[in-house]
Amino acid sequence: MMKQAFWEQWYPQMVKWRRYLHMNPELSFQEKETSAFIATRLQELGLEVKTNVGGYGVIGILKGDKPGKTVVLRSDMDALPIEDGKSCEYKSQNQGVMHACGHDGHTSILLGAAAYYSTYPEEVQGEIRFMFQPAEEVCPGGAVAMIKDGALDGADVVYGLHLWTPLPVGMVASAPGPLMAAADEFFIDITGRGGHGGMPHVTADALVAGAALVMQLQTIVSRSVDPLQPAVVTVGTMQAGNAQNVIASSCRITGTVRTFDEPTRTLIRERIEHMTRTISDTYGTKSTVRYLVGYPPVVNDEAETERFFRTAPKVVAADQVKVSPKLMPAEDFAYYLKEIPGCFMFVGAGNPDKAAIYPHHHPMFDFDEEAMRYGAKLLIEMVASCQNEE
Amino acid sequence: MMKQAFWEQWYPQMVKWRRYLHMNPELSFQEKETSAFIATRLQELGLEVKTNVGGYGVIGILKGDKPGKTVVLRSDMDALPIEDGKSCEYKSQNQGVMHACGHDGHTSILLGAAAYYSTYPEEVQGEIRFMFQPAEEVCPGGAVAMIKDGALDGADVVYGLHLWTPLPVGMVASAPGPLMAAADEFFIDITGRGGHGGMPHVTADALVAGAALVMQLQTIVSRSVDPLQPAVVTVGTMQAGNAQNVIASSCRITGTVRTFDEPTRTLIRERIEHMTRTISDTYGTKSTVRYLVGYPPVVNDEAETERFFRTAPKVVAADQVKVSPKLMPAEDFAYYLKEIPGCFMFVGAGNPDKAAIYPHHHPMFDFDEEAMRYGAKLLIEMVASCQNEE
Amino acid sequence: MMKQAFWEQWYPQMVKWRRYLHMNPELSFQEKETSAFIATRLQELGLEVKTNVGGYGVIGILKGDKPGKTVVLRSDMDALPIEDGKSCEYKSQNQGVMHACGHDGHTSILLGAAAYYSTYPEEVQGEIRFMFQPAEEVCPGGAVAMIKDGALDGADVVYGLHLWTPLPVGMVASAPGPLMAAADEFFIDITGRGGHGGMPHVTADALVAGAALVMQLQTIVSRSVDPLQPAVVTVGTMQAGNAQNVIASSCRITGTVRTFDEPTRTLIRERIEHMTRTISDTYGTKSTVRYLVGYPPVVNDEAETERFFRTAPKVVAADQVKVSPKLMPAEDFAYYLKEIPGCFMFVGAGNPDKAAIYPHHHPMFDFDEEAMRYGAKLLIEMVASCQNEE
Amino acid sequence: MMKQAFWEQWYPQMVKWRRYLHMNPELSFQEKETSAFIATRLQELGLEVKTNVGGYGVIGILKGDKPGKTVVLRSDMDALPIEDGKSCEYKSQNQGVMHACGHDGHTSILLGAAAYYSTYPEEVQGEIRFMFQPAEEVCPGGAVAMIKDGALDGADVVYGLHLWTPLPVGMVASAPGPLMAAADEFFIDITGRGGHGGMPHVTADALVAGAALVMQLQTIVSRSVDPLQPAVVTVGTMQAGNAQNVIASSCRITGTVRTFDEPTRTLIRERIEHMTRTISDTYGTKSTVRYLVGYPPVVNDEAETERFFRTAPKVVAADQVKVSPKLMPAEDFAYYLKEIPGCFMFVGAGNPDKAAIYPHHHPMFDFDEEAMRYGAKLLIEMVASCQNEE
Repeated sequence: MMKQAFWEQWYPQMVKWRRYLHMNPELSFQEKETSAFIATRLQELGLEVKTNVGGYGVIGILKGDKPGKTVVLRSDMDALPIEDGKSCEYKSQNQGVMHACGHDGHTSILLGAAAYYSTYPEEVQGEIRFMFQPAEEVCPGGAVAMIKDGALDGADVVYGLHLWTPLPVGMVASAPGPLMAAADEFFIDITGRGGHGGMPHVTADALVAGAALVMQLQTIVSRSVDPLQPAVVTVGTMQAGNAQNVIASSCRITGTVRTFDEPTRTLIRERIEHMTRTISDTYGTKSTVRYLVGYPPVVNDEAETERFFRTAPKVVAADQVKVSPKLMPAEDFAYYLKEIPGCFMFVGAGNPDKAAIYPHHHPMFDFDEEAMRYGAKLLIEMVASCQNEE
Repeated sequence: MMKQAFWEQWYPQMVKWRRYLHMNPELSFQEKETSAFIATRLQELGLEVKTNVGGYGVIGILKGDKPGKTVVLRSDMDALPIEDGKSCEYKSQNQGVMHACGHDGHTSILLGAAAYYSTYPEEVQGEIRFMFQPAEEVCPGGAVAMIKDGALDGADVVYGLHLWTPLPVGMVASAPGPLMAAADEFFIDITGRGGHGGMPHVTADALVAGAALVMQLQTIVSRSVDPLQPAVVTVGTMQAGNAQNVIASSCRITGTVRTFDEPTRTLIRERIEHMTRTISDTYGTKSTVRYLVGYPPVVNDEAETERFFRTAPKVVAADQVKVSPKLMPAEDFAYYLKEIPGCFMFVGAGNPDKAAIYPHHHPMFDFDEEAMRYGAKLLIEMVASCQNEE
Repeated sequence: MMKQAFWEQWYPQMVKWRRYLHMNPELSFQEKETSAFIATRLQELGLEVKTNVGGYGVIGILKGDKPGKTVVLRSDMDALPIEDGKSCEYKSQNQGVMHACGHDGHTSILLGAAAYYSTYPEEVQGEIRFMFQPAEEVCPGGAVAMIKDGALDGADVVYGLHLWTPLPVGMVASAPGPLMAAADEFFIDITGRGGHGGMPHVTADALVAGAALVMQLQTIVSRSVDPLQPAVVTVGTMQAGNAQNVIASSCRITGTVRTFDEPTRTLIRERIEHMTRTISDTYGTKSTVRYLVGYPPVVNDEAETERFFRTAPKVVAADQVKVSPKLMPAEDFAYYLKEIPGCFMFVGAGNPDKAAIYPHHHPMFDFDEEAMRYGAKLLIEMVASCQNEE
Repeated sequence: MMKQAFWEQWYPQMVKWRRYLHMNPELSFQEKETSAFIATRLQELGLEVKTNVGGYGVIGILKGDKPGKTVVLRSDMDALPIEDGKSCEYKSQNQGVMHACGHDGHTSILLGAAAYYSTYPEEVQGEIRFMFQPAEEVCPGGAVAMIKDGALDGADVVYGLHLWTPLPVGMVASAPGPLMAAADEFFIDITGRGGHGGMPHVTADALVAGAALVMQLQTIVSRSVDPLQPAVVTVGTMQAGNAQNVIASSCRITGTVRTFDEPTRTLIRERIEHMTRTISDTYGTKSTVRYLVGYPPVVNDEAETERFFRTAPKVVAADQVKVSPKLMPAEDFAYYLKEIPGCFMFVGAGNPDKAAIYPHHHPMFDFDEEAMRYGAKLLIEMVASCQNEE
């Protein structure tokens, strides 16, 4: 299946696509040109194309002559509000916007997979949907809207991948069950009564209430969460008071919550809201909590992840297929996995020889483009495995 | 001694002086015109005048024919960086600067007392020094420099007063021993290692260290300070972190300390410095404490305060002479009392009928000018009592 | 008035009485023999005697021919559950019970004063009540019951004193206003759900809730109480959990509160009760607070304390009359002062030459018996001053 | 291999053995009779027997004619200081001692396996060691001493199992990698200076220091430990102070630590020791930490656990083979796994129909004896799989 000629022709094309996208990045929910670019490519490849699916979402469809499963392959397409710090020729032309997470590569990979199956239509059984999703970077994300618009209707399974520079190019990784965290955010406002620094007894000190709350919040993870369930409650900021000799009338606390299962997530939210109320009450202050529910955890299907471990050795050497640790970043691919089985996979993209050494979201971020070939092959092999299964 | 004719002539003059000063306020350490105004008035009154004492300080001197004690009477003269909110005709003409604490009145009172003794020189025994001090509002204040410049050399006793709107006009108050607080300030910087909100284990969370420190600081007053010694440790501000999903790399905590005796003051400073070190160490962060030593407590001499309680009934009705509670604001008159005995007194200046209802440092602050007459008389009687004492 | 002959006769008698009482101490509410001893002595002295006033209380009454004020002089009479550690001949004969606070001396002093006025009845104007109160050491004390039984009916003023070994014999001391603290106690029970040490998420950890409460309680004094009002909230005990590897299902916290004014006292009680509720709620535990209201603060009448400062120099050298600092122990004399004006006084009783160096309630406690003579004279002079006042 | 006749003969014997042991339980390090019983049975079965291995340890050895691996099968044998609450005929005859964890069953299972291989010696390849270990329940346990005494010398692999009533009889479970926790204990003593409840400033309050420490310890899990590494730090007890009105001079804190990997374990120990020092220093108290290192985590070999998942379906229905969650109790089987590869397995033993519903270590604990047959078969199949492997 590793058709040499195909790749010799199309890999350079994938690189061109990716670099074009890299030079023309668009922010989440603003991927107008990117969306049009994708639609045009899919049409050139002869696919049936649906545009404006859940916003700027695009779906290309290939149906086989033989009956079979409907497999969805997903790419995201949005860039980040970061100034590109690289000096290469394909550097971003859009000031302050940059593909600093590799979604340009994801798009190119999925276009490559579409090219493959349009070249070898006889290999399609059932249906393959090439789904290009907008707005992965910004909550509430593009996945929900695409699902609402029918993107998964009648689909049996969904695969997605992420280029990953912490993993060397040539490796791939995934894991069954919870793989990427749910990431929520909270914004707490405590309002007291300020006053003269020497007269605490006529005030309600919002700063002390806030400090006390920060300390009690530590016990959520240490006492309330099942020790076997990974979870993080981070207070990222606390801002209280305006002058050293005036008692603070207000305190703002913000933070993030990372979890891998819904019960833990719900528990933590309830604990934060409850503790804010009781600790604020302790100090005679008022409080509000705004809890921003972010993406759910990415939970891979057991069987589809077993498929990954069986299939990936066809793409990379067997000893380059890794069990991924759980990861704290979130990903709205999670929503698809709540609807149908599937697997999210990491494709190694780091390479010191190609300056692909920076973390995702870094102004110097780049990846080894060879990783795109591995990524496209991985998707193709996953489809084949799935559709050839009796 | 309550010479009617004198006051009929000079009280209107005192009001004029005060209003001129109110219209032409100058900030601490910038009292150039105020200083010149005072010097001119003293010269007109025939006093020996020393200028530029410890900065813009002015001293007028009257010496009696008879031997006697050298009594120092002190006024401050600086204004505040507050926009005058009043609409009266003597409103501040200096934008953003305002006599919002009554130092204009203090100056006028002391000029009035100088006028009195220049009118009745035979009442002077020994020496009277009319000392006009700059920069009371801003640490390190003007008192220290004036002392260094010899303002108290050879002096036996010092009296000062503060117009006080929380006290109704017609009342006066003071108390033996510690009367006004020492006010110090502290600035704590905690430096940790920031990082991804989901990965606390590779960071040193400066925010949690800061919150923990705020809680432990509460125990200084609750456990370390003698319960019979009034003391306040207020953390006025805490600023930590920049984003809700990033662990804070730094935390700044500022606050104020109020005490009435040096051992407690020293104890608290040592506790703050010690606790910052140990709590920072607890969380693997680094820390610095900058402790700004402010004015010492105003500690009235026992005997001179007894003099006040004996003497004041000559100025106001006996039942209008009050024992003052301790007050949390600081006052650099404290430095004089560390050198020689003396008494600091409050002169009631509040009067709802004259809109003298706002707290000191308020943009609408004003006082009942009648209080100036009581103030001048009180100083005169204190001098008389002191110098007539065998 | 310092009748030499009287004291030569009666002081040795006072010593005998005191030593008899010292050898026969009785615990609070059990002062049967002590009460009978006192009544007999008063009868021998020719006083009108009322027994069983509010329990074992005894009152001796002397009325003068001339009209005048009714002055109450109060002594307490109970001992402590302490094993006498001294080896002197008048050591306690009652095992485990000891006059370790000097109430034997107080009784003897008041009998001496009664002897004086029965010797010189012409000096009595109005009425003198010699009131011997049981049960000062144990809350709710004997004062309340005696008041209820009419001990103060028709009385104008009350005086009491305490022998005080921290003060050298020959000195006396008192102060106007709040002199001795109100002392309350609190008993907090927190009930959670215990469980396996490795499974905190299925428990409600009463120990962590308790520790959190202890920390928040520190803020009552540091933030809620007026810094000018002395106050202490001490958590004396915390007992939580039974095994190192089992999460605690319960936590008991006990403590004491010291205040000098009722508003602060009420505030602290409310804060303790409120914080216990909110912190317990924070951790999903249940809680109860038992707050034991102890004696109120001893608040000396201003005028009667001025009398003390005028009168005491007739008993000791003027420079041996001291202003007492506030003291943290409580005293149920406080109840009398809530009913009528009066003054509570300290009579120096320490003397290294006579081994009177131990603190009150110490097994080696003793006092210099000469202090009894000063004490009796002080009461006599206070009565004289009061009744001779026009 | 499921030889029907063998089990018909020997299973009733296994039940007899188990019941005999259940009636004659012995505490850890005191298993004299149990050890002798085992040795006699092994000798009757014709095995080479070593006694007194690392204390009361017993090893039975069977060697095959064919070369092969040396497989160690391990049982523990000690009982618990619990009064047997059951009323069945095989109830404990040893007052206050009870086989409340199933080690009687483990012993019987291993004897059954020995009987099997002595019946079918031709199935032995290489060597099988039937290792009966004393003192699993009490740290430092019996494993270390047996290893020191050579129990694992020349061995290739080790298998062990635990009857498990939370798992229904007929199920078996295990998991690769860390399966059971390391369990350490800590004992912290904080020593301050006690004193009068009203005079905190002359004391060093050990109770407040202890409460502060408890709160800071919460941050070890919430901030210092990798969120993906399960860990628990439980403070189980805190005992401070003796009287509600006396400031505590000492505070004792004890607790347990559960971890699944050595770096986390080391980190937590260091954090506890460090925080105790810094928080004690914060409050001017002294401290000591005694950290009792318990059993390491049970870490199953990946390959041997895969063997379990391949092999167990020969013993129970395939859908009754479960992936075990991590478990918080500790087990000194961990020491063997630090030396050689192996697998620790859970054998379901719960059955409501046979009152096998109580948790381990409960006075009513019992298990379904049928589980012993599954257990013996599982060990036999694991040996066969291992020794037949080329």
